[in-house]
Amino acid sequence: MESSDLKLLPLNSDIAESQNSICIFGTGDFGRALAHKMLQSGLSVIFGSRNPNVSNLLPTGVEVQSHTVAAQKSSIIFLAVQRDHYSFLTEMTEVLEGKVLVDVSNNLKINQYPESNAEYLAKISPGSKVVKAFNTVSAWSLQSGSLDANRQVFVCSNDNKAKQMVMDIVRAIGLTPQDQGSLVAAKDIENYPLQLFPMWKLPICICAGLTVFVFLYCILSDIIYTAVTDGKDISFRVAISIPNKVFPIVSLMLLALVYLPGVFAAIVQLYRGTKYSRFPNWLDIWMLCRKQLGLVALAYAFLHAIYTLVIPIRYYVRHRSASNIISQIKNNSSSPFSNIIAWRTDSYIALGILGFFFYVLLGITSLPSVSNVMNWREFRFVQSKLGYVTLVLCTGHALIFGWDKFIHLDRFRWCLPPAYTLSLVVPCIVLVLKVILICPCIDKRITRIRQGWESSKMKKPFINGSSAL
Amino acid sequence: MESSDLKLLPLNSDIAESQNSICIFGTGDFGRALAHKMLQSGLSVIFGSRNPNVSNLLPTGVEVQSHTVAAQKSSIIFLAVQRDHYSFLTEMTEVLEGKVLVDVSNNLKINQYPESNAEYLAKISPGSKVVKAFNTVSAWSLQSGSLDANRQVFVCSNDNKAKQMVMDIVRAIGLTPQDQGSLVAAKDIENYPLQLFPMWKLPICICAGLTVFVFLYCILSDIIYTAVTDGKDISFRVAISIPNKVFPIVSLMLLALVYLPGVFAAIVQLYRGTKYSRFPNWLDIWMLCRKQLGLVALAYAFLHAIYTLVIPIRYYVRHRSASNIISQIKNNSSSPFSNIIAWRTDSYIALGILGFFFYVLLGITSLPSVSNVMNWREFRFVQSKLGYVTLVLCTGHALIFGWDKFIHLDRFRWCLPPAYTLSLVVPCIVLVLKVILICPCIDKRITRIRQGWESSKMKKPFINGSSAL
Amino acid sequence: MESSDLKLLPLNSDIAESQNSICIFGTGDFGRALAHKMLQSGLSVIFGSRNPNVSNLLPTGVEVQSHTVAAQKSSIIFLAVQRDHYSFLTEMTEVLEGKVLVDVSNNLKINQYPESNAEYLAKISPGSKVVKAFNTVSAWSLQSGSLDANRQVFVCSNDNKAKQMVMDIVRAIGLTPQDQGSLVAAKDIENYPLQLFPMWKLPICICAGLTVFVFLYCILSDIIYTAVTDGKDISFRVAISIPNKVFPIVSLMLLALVYLPGVFAAIVQLYRGTKYSRFPNWLDIWMLCRKQLGLVALAYAFLHAIYTLVIPIRYYVRHRSASNIISQIKNNSSSPFSNIIAWRTDSYIALGILGFFFYVLLGITSLPSVSNVMNWREFRFVQSKLGYVTLVLCTGHALIFGWDKFIHLDRFRWCLPPAYTLSLVVPCIVLVLKVILICPCIDKRITRIRQGWESSKMKKPFINGSSAL
Repeated sequence: MESSDLKLLPLNSDIAESQNSICIFGTGDFGRALAHKMLQSGLSVIFGSRNPNVSNLLPTGVEVQSHTVAAQKSSIIFLAVQRDHYSFLTEMTEVLEGKVLVDVSNNLKINQYPESNAEYLAKISPGSKVVKAFNTVSAWSLQSGSLDANRQVFVCSNDNKAKQMVMDIVRAIGLTPQDQGSLVAAKDIENYPLQLFPMWKLPICICAGLTVFVFLYCILSDIIYTAVTDGKDISFRVAISIPNKVFPIVSLMLLALVYLPGVFAAIVQLYRGTKYSRFPNWLDIWMLCRKQLGLVALAYAFLHAIYTLVIPIRYYVRHRSASNIISQIKNNSSSPFSNIIAWRTDSYIALGILGFFFYVLLGITSLPSVSNVMNWREFRFVQSKLGYVTLVLCTGHALIFGWDKFIHLDRFRWCLPPAYTLSLVVPCIVLVLKVILICPCIDKRITRIRQGWESSKMKKPFINGSSAL
Repeated sequence: MESSDLKLLPLNSDIAESQNSICIFGTGDFGRALAHKMLQSGLSVIFGSRNPNVSNLLPTGVEVQSHTVAAQKSSIIFLAVQRDHYSFLTEMTEVLEGKVLVDVSNNLKINQYPESNAEYLAKISPGSKVVKAFNTVSAWSLQSGSLDANRQVFVCSNDNKAKQMVMDIVRAIGLTPQDQGSLVAAKDIENYPLQLFPMWKLPICICAGLTVFVFLYCILSDIIYTAVTDGKDISFRVAISIPNKVFPIVSLMLLALVYLPGVFAAIVQLYRGTKYSRFPNWLDIWMLCRKQLGLVALAYAFLHAIYTLVIPIRYYVRHRSASNIISQIKNNSSSPFSNIIAWRTDSYIALGILGFFFYVLLGITSLPSVSNVMNWREFRFVQSKLGYVTLVLCTGHALIFGWDKFIHLDRFRWCLPPAYTLSLVVPCIVLVLKVILICPCIDKRITRIRQGWESSKMKKPFINGSSAL
Repeated sequence: MESSDLKLLPLNSDIAESQNSICIFGTGDFGRALAHKMLQSGLSVIFGSRNPNVSNLLPTGVEVQSHTVAAQKSSIIFLAVQRDHYSFLTEMTEVLEGKVLVDVSNNLKINQYPESNAEYLAKISPGSKVVKAFNTVSAWSLQSGSLDANRQVFVCSNDNKAKQMVMDIVRAIGLTPQDQGSLVAAKDIENYPLQLFPMWKLPICICAGLTVFVFLYCILSDIIYTAVTDGKDISFRVAISIPNKVFPIVSLMLLALVYLPGVFAAIVQLYRGTKYSRFPNWLDIWMLCRKQLGLVALAYAFLHAIYTLVIPIRYYVRHRSASNIISQIKNNSSSPFSNIIAWRTDSYIALGILGFFFYVLLGITSLPSVSNVMNWREFRFVQSKLGYVTLVLCTGHALIFGWDKFIHLDRFRWCLPPAYTLSLVVPCIVLVLKVILICPCIDKRITRIRQGWESSKMKKPFINGSSAL
């Protein structure tokens, strides 16, 4: 009783007490950086090294001892050596008995070994309490103090007290611990720093595929068609004119794809009459990458905006407009001002600007620090209501831009409809479905289903729902 | 000594100990999501349900028991049922005696009930320690792990130990607890997720009012005036030309309104000779919504920038410039290049760009994550010094844009001064007052008043100030 | 049962227990604001004041006592008085014995006193446990609750339990404590709120220096040269044309300066054959301010973008283009459309847009909240890979913009090469060096050196590396 009480003393104060300094095995890069940071935070550190005399690069005033001596002096040992060298621990099982052993190692490849380094460590050092931590932090950032990337330290262990001790150390040196549960999580934690934007892969692939398709479509219907039909070389359009068709088309498609899964989900829930059933897997994946899809769409919209604003600066455009004026004068024919054209062009430009404005607003609110200060209702208001406003504005922008081109068959080149029509298919489907879904009768039913409990009081799912108590 | 040590035991290790699993009443949406998250974080969970056999949707490996059995097995119970069903708890007063009862419920409307759900719970279950928490987190985000909105969990309770236990659980599952004090705060906490940008309401109302006013003013003095006087229909200007007058005018007004309360406050302090007295309430409210006012102003400035950049693309502008050239040729009269006009136009454009640049800088520094890494002095430097630079640049932009139009009475339509003059009234007042306030003698007095202690040593407020010890 | 209850007492509850209310010495601004916030969070507060009757401005329901009485009633005392008045504490040494004394004071100047206020306090009140905290928070933000700037509270103390208690209070009132170690850190903590962007000074000085130099260069080779040679006054170009040369030139230089130190570092490591040696000091400083340099470069690129987009709106440009058309008609000579010029101009515009796009992407990912959700590998991918893509695009933009101007000696004015060539020197050096460094053979060696351990297995540094165990 007594002794267990003593063990439970709040760890911070305990850690910092001098007789209980932190031991680091390994005087390499990471070990030194860790020691540096701990010393800065007022913790005391002792190094365990094969060769205790090598200390030229170590922080001044730090003791270096043999592994065994260092381990005896502290109850927590950071293992800053490579997995290949863990074997030396088997020789000191006795001294490690009951100690907290922190595995900070990283691998070079995802899933490099069948079992995680931390689990391997737990196997070869059965008497000690293994904690996985600190592998997501880089030595350089610890040393330089410029912790730009990730202040989060993922921690996992099968021993809760040991985990708690490590989390207190994490806090003590100014980082944020993230409890990831038991040692089973070590594999994920070790893979984490090797990942490269896993959530972005699908959206970027979709975007790249659409981009290539629309690009080729435009090349074919613009440049190749003109070359074949008129024998004119307008290949210079590849630099600006064609991209400025591709970007808005793909952007609008992607924006529609952000809202399509939500519509599908509502239909699925309506059809099943309950939300207490899993969505099909593809829909789940799709819904989880909506944010990334939206941001890629925003990036394209941004490019479209600049490509458009740059138009009057282009040599081609200035030359064409000058020749236009010159030919008007030569033919003594000035085109009269058309109020309708003025209305139409100004409208689609205005819609485009407003659409872009809301796009940017959506982008800003999806910054982590901005979305953190919103409550759930505000976040959904922005991402759903404002999102649909954006979609409506951008679809309107494309519709008025296109005007009646899509019904003039002479605009069709080699039977290909104008490129902009490609962008309108998905948004129009989404908007039509959404209009149906927000009809009062249907909307009421969906709301009831989504509130779970309400729905349960009225119909079949009742038994299910009330048993939820 | 011993006993003080005992007092210092941390809770975390206790929570995680196996015999002390967490009980969740209610197998609904939120209950399941919570269990899912807790299991992930290595906590053990037991469900209490009216019908312990319904477990098809529950996370695998979770025990489901009757309410009573489940409650007996743990010291902390999450109540994931609707307020309407709380009554069943009255039957199990004995088993709930001394337990921590966590109310996670939400309402559908702000102030739906006269007393908060948590306070109601405390009344019907007097023996247990009620904690309000987790109502700001959505089931979906818990389950999907995509905690975009709000990682903060507001916690309040009359029992500090119980509150501490819940806060430790919050931390354990990777969220951030926010202590909100006693159970009186439950009402606010329950209202919080139902709020929709409460701080933005006033600024957006002000902005909307000004927008409508300026819009109508411009419609009247531009479109209607032209229609009446010249009989010409220039209604297409509603799409771009008019908004591009409204946005900059309102933006500049709003920006000036951001700095006006600060000037008022300084005058109030100067007049009273002390800062130890409350500002009038309207000034307090105004000062607290300055950030939002500024961001709305920035949004309008952004729109003004794009509307302006889009000018040369517009059909109307291109047509007018072509007809201009054509008429010059026909009349054989070319307008000579004027150095003064070149200076004037380039100056106001340059001032506008620089003003917009500082505007954007102010916007970026008001992002929560950016302002978090600034100290108080840096934040004030940016928001005050750079803010005034922005105001000066934008006011200069408007002044040089207008040039001498406001003194040419023939520019007045129906006695209405040009629209841009509207935007200059407030900024000029603010800048004049500010120039007076930063006169060395006045500035010195204000600084002394604001430093509180310094001021106290010199004059009347002395007694007050020194008694501050 | 009893004892297990005792075990569970966390520090917070201890603090909050009524007999243990928090004492605040000083009823001034900060003391009142602190009390206000603590009361809100459910802590109880007692003021110690020289004149216990002055309570008109204090939060309602707060007890005010003499210093001695107030101190006796609590174990933790916040000292919200100026350093000059600390002397009164010497008279109450007895009552302060063993108490936690929190120094919240700030100075008016950096390094105002030879020793920090907290250390001075520790000296004159040797029996108490001094903790430095809360000095980075402003009274106004505590009171108004609008904690825009900095929720972080730096805490340091020589007594770990006392520090822990204060950190718990910090958390209890909704702020984030940052353990800064022992009381030696107090000096830095006291200086912190007086700093004004220390990391930005060097980058901004470099930027200002380059800006002035390039500006004068452009004035000389454009305006003065034209004035002297042609006798024409084109001074109006100072407003837009000249800045629009200065911004892109300096921006590209700065961007190259962001990547130059990395290249130097690689060369140093290659030359020394190890990374286990310190970089020269100037290189360290340079590497730590890369982020700021990059952001300044982005700001200039942003200005360049807007200055460019504004071109067709300018009176000068519109006038020139009109006179151009008019003279073409008069001379009956229309310049034929050149495919090569179209290609060239469209290419450099497109490269510029894409370069700017990646620039902005880099800027967004360096927002603290965005870089926090990236792991180290992702952060380096963005900042290094995407950074080089940006540099290549922008250098290409400048090269194609300049085309062959730099070899036509008649373009040289007074032997000065065209201004844009200035911007290309550093980027070209960086890119050439980088191309050499990523040659497979050299890249492999660098990678090995950087992985530390791997390198050690293969050659001389082996002994060093293995002894790292």
